[in-house]
Amino acid sequence: MSERNIRVEPIDRQAVEDQEVEIVERKGIGHPDSISDGVAEAVAGALAREYLDRIGKVLHFNTDETQLVAGEAAPAFGGGEVVDPIYLLIVGRATKHYDGQTIPAETIALRAAREYLESEIPQLTVGEDIVVDIRLGEGSGDLQDVFGEDEVSVPMANDTSFGVGHAPLTETEQIVLEAERRLNGEFADENPYVGTDIKIMGKREGDEIDVTVAAAMVDEHIADLDAYAEAVESVREFVAEVASEHTDRDVTVHVNTADDYEEGSIYLTVTGTSAEQGDDGSVGRGNRANGLITPNRSMSMEATSGKNPVNHIGKIYNLLSTEIAEEVVGEVDGIRDLRVRLLSQIGRPIDQPHVADVHVVTEAGVELSDVEAEIETIVDAELANVTDITRRVIDGELTTF
Amino acid sequence: MSERNIRVEPIDRQAVEDQEVEIVERKGIGHPDSISDGVAEAVAGALAREYLDRIGKVLHFNTDETQLVAGEAAPAFGGGEVVDPIYLLIVGRATKHYDGQTIPAETIALRAAREYLESEIPQLTVGEDIVVDIRLGEGSGDLQDVFGEDEVSVPMANDTSFGVGHAPLTETEQIVLEAERRLNGEFADENPYVGTDIKIMGKREGDEIDVTVAAAMVDEHIADLDAYAEAVESVREFVAEVASEHTDRDVTVHVNTADDYEEGSIYLTVTGTSAEQGDDGSVGRGNRANGLITPNRSMSMEATSGKNPVNHIGKIYNLLSTEIAEEVVGEVDGIRDLRVRLLSQIGRPIDQPHVADVHVVTEAGVELSDVEAEIETIVDAELANVTDITRRVIDGELTTF
Amino acid sequence: MSERNIRVEPIDRQAVEDQEVEIVERKGIGHPDSISDGVAEAVAGALAREYLDRIGKVLHFNTDETQLVAGEAAPAFGGGEVVDPIYLLIVGRATKHYDGQTIPAETIALRAAREYLESEIPQLTVGEDIVVDIRLGEGSGDLQDVFGEDEVSVPMANDTSFGVGHAPLTETEQIVLEAERRLNGEFADENPYVGTDIKIMGKREGDEIDVTVAAAMVDEHIADLDAYAEAVESVREFVAEVASEHTDRDVTVHVNTADDYEEGSIYLTVTGTSAEQGDDGSVGRGNRANGLITPNRSMSMEATSGKNPVNHIGKIYNLLSTEIAEEVVGEVDGIRDLRVRLLSQIGRPIDQPHVADVHVVTEAGVELSDVEAEIETIVDAELANVTDITRRVIDGELTTF
Amino acid sequence: MSERNIRVEPIDRQAVEDQEVEIVERKGIGHPDSISDGVAEAVAGALAREYLDRIGKVLHFNTDETQLVAGEAAPAFGGGEVVDPIYLLIVGRATKHYDGQTIPAETIALRAAREYLESEIPQLTVGEDIVVDIRLGEGSGDLQDVFGEDEVSVPMANDTSFGVGHAPLTETEQIVLEAERRLNGEFADENPYVGTDIKIMGKREGDEIDVTVAAAMVDEHIADLDAYAEAVESVREFVAEVASEHTDRDVTVHVNTADDYEEGSIYLTVTGTSAEQGDDGSVGRGNRANGLITPNRSMSMEATSGKNPVNHIGKIYNLLSTEIAEEVVGEVDGIRDLRVRLLSQIGRPIDQPHVADVHVVTEAGVELSDVEAEIETIVDAELANVTDITRRVIDGELTTF
Repeated sequence: MSERNIRVEPIDRQAVEDQEVEIVERKGIGHPDSISDGVAEAVAGALAREYLDRIGKVLHFNTDETQLVAGEAAPAFGGGEVVDPIYLLIVGRATKHYDGQTIPAETIALRAAREYLESEIPQLTVGEDIVVDIRLGEGSGDLQDVFGEDEVSVPMANDTSFGVGHAPLTETEQIVLEAERRLNGEFADENPYVGTDIKIMGKREGDEIDVTVAAAMVDEHIADLDAYAEAVESVREFVAEVASEHTDRDVTVHVNTADDYEEGSIYLTVTGTSAEQGDDGSVGRGNRANGLITPNRSMSMEATSGKNPVNHIGKIYNLLSTEIAEEVVGEVDGIRDLRVRLLSQIGRPIDQPHVADVHVVTEAGVELSDVEAEIETIVDAELANVTDITRRVIDGELTTF
Repeated sequence: MSERNIRVEPIDRQAVEDQEVEIVERKGIGHPDSISDGVAEAVAGALAREYLDRIGKVLHFNTDETQLVAGEAAPAFGGGEVVDPIYLLIVGRATKHYDGQTIPAETIALRAAREYLESEIPQLTVGEDIVVDIRLGEGSGDLQDVFGEDEVSVPMANDTSFGVGHAPLTETEQIVLEAERRLNGEFADENPYVGTDIKIMGKREGDEIDVTVAAAMVDEHIADLDAYAEAVESVREFVAEVASEHTDRDVTVHVNTADDYEEGSIYLTVTGTSAEQGDDGSVGRGNRANGLITPNRSMSMEATSGKNPVNHIGKIYNLLSTEIAEEVVGEVDGIRDLRVRLLSQIGRPIDQPHVADVHVVTEAGVELSDVEAEIETIVDAELANVTDITRRVIDGELTTF
Repeated sequence: MSERNIRVEPIDRQAVEDQEVEIVERKGIGHPDSISDGVAEAVAGALAREYLDRIGKVLHFNTDETQLVAGEAAPAFGGGEVVDPIYLLIVGRATKHYDGQTIPAETIALRAAREYLESEIPQLTVGEDIVVDIRLGEGSGDLQDVFGEDEVSVPMANDTSFGVGHAPLTETEQIVLEAERRLNGEFADENPYVGTDIKIMGKREGDEIDVTVAAAMVDEHIADLDAYAEAVESVREFVAEVASEHTDRDVTVHVNTADDYEEGSIYLTVTGTSAEQGDDGSVGRGNRANGLITPNRSMSMEATSGKNPVNHIGKIYNLLSTEIAEEVVGEVDGIRDLRVRLLSQIGRPIDQPHVADVHVVTEAGVELSDVEAEIETIVDAELANVTDITRRVIDGELTTF
Repeated sequence: MSERNIRVEPIDRQAVEDQEVEIVERKGIGHPDSISDGVAEAVAGALAREYLDRIGKVLHFNTDETQLVAGEAAPAFGGGEVVDPIYLLIVGRATKHYDGQTIPAETIALRAAREYLESEIPQLTVGEDIVVDIRLGEGSGDLQDVFGEDEVSVPMANDTSFGVGHAPLTETEQIVLEAERRLNGEFADENPYVGTDIKIMGKREGDEIDVTVAAAMVDEHIADLDAYAEAVESVREFVAEVASEHTDRDVTVHVNTADDYEEGSIYLTVTGTSAEQGDDGSVGRGNRANGLITPNRSMSMEATSGKNPVNHIGKIYNLLSTEIAEEVVGEVDGIRDLRVRLLSQIGRPIDQPHVADVHVVTEAGVELSDVEAEIETIVDAELANVTDITRRVIDGELTTF
């Protein structure tokens, strides 16, 4: 065993799955907050990769402050138009000069933002429906060399902060997460009328699950109010189907409940996102690192998207604690709910958190002592491997929102 | 009893005060996130008051997305200078035209921002050390008339969302909150060398409390390294003194631990805030509505600052649940820890939450049934009085961060 | 004869062609001032066409204030990169609401700007090398209906202002104009190493013409210093060839005279424009409406690009006076130099200028009285036809810089 | 005599005073173009002085591209308000790092802009009615040492360009210039209802002079339409009085001729400038270096305001040629009209222009040969003293618009 300060303890509450009331939310990738997260993270990944390519190591940067200012739009059946463009300001800092080299951080960032938007929010015409501006200050030089061939070492924590992760997902969590991903995936591929701005709230009271979906419809593909109603119904059916794959509880699905057909007030958009009309967005204001907002669980206030994956604890420990939780639950039998918290101390190597505490709800008949050692071993191994998180973030293998 | 859906239940965890590890954080008013919060809230208050003055009711607005882009500074003993100004973008929307009247929302907002900054962050010269820009979209019209003379009614919730509040504060929480407030109050009045950007983290393990303070020092009032060291020591002593008023536990105070005097690396600033050099900020990324970040407790992701206090649940329910928690703990004996959660449903009157659940840890010897009725009565009365929160926000009596 | 106030008089100076010293300048389409002019005019054309399409008449707008903030670049033989993007702010106002319709002026403008840049300055990647932002205020409503089917009428002048035009071009003027156009045309088609930012100054002293060319070379197509030197020489030869088609005088051509090969100081760029590195630009600061800067001739300070072509005298009278001058010189024999000035009076129909004065230098043996009547007839007819200028501007048939 | 290339020649036209039609215009200091000029020049002066203070010499900068985006206002008798603020973007570049020192160019510029606006356009509340933003790129290092104690030398021209100056002013020119200056001076001191945005056009046909004044009235000081009419009349009388001091010709003064009292369409403003409502502005688009726009005379397209006064020919030669013209006319008898043109060549010392040509109209009975030598001596002396212009610009003794 290493000398890492790992504690495995019983959690002093019920498993979330067993609590009476549970609330879960997810903002889809086209939600203004998620657009900000997505751009920030795309920019961060691009910068990290360019630094590796050009310098051989990741230099100081953080771009976790993208701000989206909503536009104004005039949707119409069959196709309306954006009237005032969305304004997106990429904010942060990056090392622009290092060891005689100039790194074009702002053009790298702009390219990454454009490519991300064109790929993920294709209904938005970049430079027309959305203006992308940038203000990147000069970052201050060097970070530790994590991947180099020699003198590689574990970075020091940039801050005293903490990350938190959970596993397994409850049924409600799974439904909320999967419903959004599959609506924005297979469903949207077949049904282009559904926009990327899909907000899903799951509420479970006892064994009744209510799933409320707000789905921006894309006007170009909606001919009239009947078509709209059909589109809404198709989303409802699809989500109900997804839900049934994850639970045996009773599930009721509501879609676009704020609509008022009489008044002609429906959720019709030109670009599939409410950013086109009045909804601003910002990094770190939406989903946590595991893709969900879960009031029943501890959450970190730290924005994960856009941060430097080498030494920024606010990013690394949120991702790592989630990884650890999933790994433990995957490997160890008898765990009903598990929370991992990693607390850093500024200046301490990130593989050696000040505290790594794991709180466990075991299944009936399982004692903590039955699983304690196994859990510790996994936590220890994952911590030893912390720079793997860095690598996977840079390679775009981990989602942050 | 009303027909409000109020549930009082035991909490399925220990009181935070009794948990083994507790972490608490507060970002002082000069922290970049807090500057953003403060400006957003000052702007919101000014808009609300102007709407009342001009129209007789509050119109639609929200300004909860201020973005701060850090500047660059060259601090020096005796007084350095800001090199590149901070850029602050006020973002949101407001009703600019109503019933034939034009409301100058942007100039109102700019004035409020300037007055707030000049009053609260006086070392920042507005228009020189900080550029304040604005992009306020057009808000969409009317809100319900909350304060008018006739047909006054309770507004409908603008969203399905929830707020959460806690009471009483633990000792660690009290220390963290008070230390920042008094450093930025009486201490700064006497000792102008302490800046407004004071970040305090409290960590309690068992009965040992560590308080870590990062306090930006103002170079104009620091002659040399000795003076700096004295300033740091004076802060340490002051915080230790504050702490001793709130606990009998062992308290250790650390100030500016990242300093390295040998390297000349100290926390010296021109303007008393790290916004001058590399630290960006954003609304809703810092303190929760009660002024703290408390990973041991449920927290809402919703930004409270800058939101409309008439119908924006993300604001009202966070403030109200905190009020309720404090009221209950003040009135009812025998409560060791209490959490209030208010869940809204879009379109439902805000005095009738979908669920108001109160989770209680009673003191030894007290049963939940002893206090249940009393709690319900208070919750019910506070909910009936919800628009009082609106009024007090508008009058600037409630803090939001 | 109409009652227009047309005066034909002798000019009280020599023909410019006969003056001892003549200076002529042209900023190529990739010069930062010309980029601003070009974008402003492209935006204006697009707005005018959209208004015609949607409303049936041109509404109030003017976009004659685009500002370009230079970027920073690191050119290198074989291909360098833009480090900090150029920032282009489209400024002006446009009617966004008319008769119940919403006109998406900002998205129209952004699209026009992007299409213009992609077509005319193709080395610039829009959204990466250049950020295009926009601030269009709301224009104030209606203009006169110029093209409609009934009640068509001649618009009133929006201002008391004047326009001035000249013909024929002197040899030096022809050389400067043609050299830039053909370098940016046929020559660039064959030789992609020449950028769009070509600044040409012609100076004639007596019968000696010096043509000084500053041509931004595109690094991607320049392998090394030898290739650069060859490129410079090829430009020199081409311009000398063009010049020889327009004059029998002695012509000396200098290209990139500020280069210092020893110091490695050459005019190498990534994008073919100095906007990438330190040269800002603005509408109306470069070429006059005839494409030239001609200190020997009267010039109007009015920016022509970006203005509304329906009633903006600063645009219409500069274009029309140039048209008239060319028409007269084309039709009437015996004219050596001619200047047309049109002075408007605010509120007066634009086909009836306050004064239209034509100053003429006749050729030897020709008296003014020989040509006076003929000139007046042409001027009168052109003025009667003034809305033809509007039409041609909207159709993109007239250049403004 | 020096070896400077000075030519004194007869001008091949009449004195402007003797031409049949003369047009002169001046945009007052509160005109949007003049605000841009004024801010640009204030910033330039502040930068130059700071460089001298800190470094001992002026470093590279130019700030000749300020852009003003108009706001929106709701004026009203007795006092209205600005609805959307004016946006002013200071554009240019400046040396921020030199020889180990950091020069806070952006904060210097912001301070200069604010102080200028507060002093010259006092009705504008900076930070409320007008947002001042800045984008200053990094300038490239060193300029020649003009004022140092040793190795002082004459700078080299930064460009091949020319400047032009005239003297004496015609009566119409004097009237236009003086009327604006005294309206914005003694008259405004007594009559605060007159705004700073005063545009004056003088038109002389033969011996009839029409002076057309557009004067923005400040609503706070105008109680009603009668008061407005009185204010207009008082301006008319004052300008008529000023005019009578400069001419014996017939003068007619028109003030705010576009007003329509029936329609309630008058020139009423909140802040005394049309920048508050729809009129954008830009450096170099208004008055030439002598404060006037004079279509009857040669004019330089170069913006004078905001340019570096050490080596920027576009600034120095326009100011110097005007100085020379005034000096010659002041010292030498018998000159009716005089134009000085200075043509630089890039890289040549600025005291040795490529050509300095002086075109003269002598008074009746005076031959050019009578004054030629005297003129040449003065021109030569002024050129030898060229850096005096630099000094006076830095000390704020010369106006540029």
